[in-house]
Amino acid sequence: MIDPSKVMESITVKLNQNMIPDQIQRLEQQIEFMIEIDKLKQISRKTILTDRSREENSAEHSWHIAMAVCLFSEYAQDQEIDWYRVLKMLLVHDLVEIDAGDTYCYDHQGRKDQAQREEAAAQRIFKILPQNQSRSFRALWEEFENRETPESKYANALDRFQPFLQNYVTEGRVWRENNITRRQVMERMQPVFDGAPMLWNLVKLFIDDAVQKKYLAG
Amino acid sequence: MIDPSKVMESITVKLNQNMIPDQIQRLEQQIEFMIEIDKLKQISRKTILTDRSREENSAEHSWHIAMAVCLFSEYAQDQEIDWYRVLKMLLVHDLVEIDAGDTYCYDHQGRKDQAQREEAAAQRIFKILPQNQSRSFRALWEEFENRETPESKYANALDRFQPFLQNYVTEGRVWRENNITRRQVMERMQPVFDGAPMLWNLVKLFIDDAVQKKYLAG
Repeated sequence: MIDPSKVMESITVKLNQNMIPDQIQRLEQQIEFMIEIDKLKQISRKTILTDRSREENSAEHSWHIAMAVCLFSEYAQDQEIDWYRVLKMLLVHDLVEIDAGDTYCYDHQGRKDQAQREEAAAQRIFKILPQNQSRSFRALWEEFENRETPESKYANALDRFQPFLQNYVTEGRVWRENNITRRQVMERMQPVFDGAPMLWNLVKLFIDDAVQKKYLAG
Repeated sequence: MIDPSKVMESITVKLNQNMIPDQIQRLEQQIEFMIEIDKLKQISRKTILTDRSREENSAEHSWHIAMAVCLFSEYAQDQEIDWYRVLKMLLVHDLVEIDAGDTYCYDHQGRKDQAQREEAAAQRIFKILPQNQSRSFRALWEEFENRETPESKYANALDRFQPFLQNYVTEGRVWRENNITRRQVMERMQPVFDGAPMLWNLVKLFIDDAVQKKYLAG
């Protein structure tokens, strides 16, 4: 395979004819980033597809929750939010997993050094970009993680709701394999309450039903 | 697996306590759609991942080009576009492939009935949604297909540019397997010229280089 950082080398001379060096470098960095993030398609998550054929990956998950932003927009707690920023946030929110991997939300051991691993990943991955984009992409990731703005609250609600729904539809296979309890899921779903209260009502009903059907430990 | 259309049945009675019937039906349709579109993760495309391990699927592709909207925004021909609509368009643009499959862009036989197959798919898939969303999602898909608005022109540019780049980085493996020529790729990349002329300059240089390296037939 061509080393992503080498892709532009062979054509730099020709680009040079029409562009100033700063523009060339900028475009090279953007192309390198475009190729680098292809790796997110290889990051497996715990959640399985609804047909149970395999685990989903973080690129697919990111697409699915971005779709959910549009699908469930009427249930966002704050209707005056910047919807474009919500989408951008969800598109970039898992990029750090390219280096740090996906950490299962109920893996207490793994979560201990998660922040540290993801910070190192952010430093490497966003640094590929031109400086202004490096800053703005990183800021989106941090905004998502901090869950303080209305945009990030709604984004986090969907990031929790989609795998929850997938777990429910697959009869709680992953929950059962990991002995997950009602209490753990209730706690994990808190951001749904904060960002999309109407969906939280639904989550509670699904949880009751999941306990009754033994998808979840009571 | 739980039949998506049956997911809500067990909890309808309880939802009933707090909601009017129209709200319940609306939410049921949205949840059913959310589960239905999970199938896009199973639709294989011709393009392979940069590590050449497998073909990418349409959900991953949709995420990657949505990211590209943000990454290459400065090169959009029209800078006054509704960026949120560009993203929504790309998130939904391949949903019809759930029924119609991905049609390889150089498969002239497959392309003959592509429009017909995709129209049937659109009718079934968007019909799952509540009426107002059914109309707006379908309108986004049609806008993308028609390539008339500035938003759809930029969206189409990225839909062509991403697989092109992936083909280049994998030393044209898929091009070579299908005896694709320079002329075919130049024609296929026309929307890049229309929506993001600066990236078109890059595409031309990559094509020259690809011919020289025999990734593409001259």
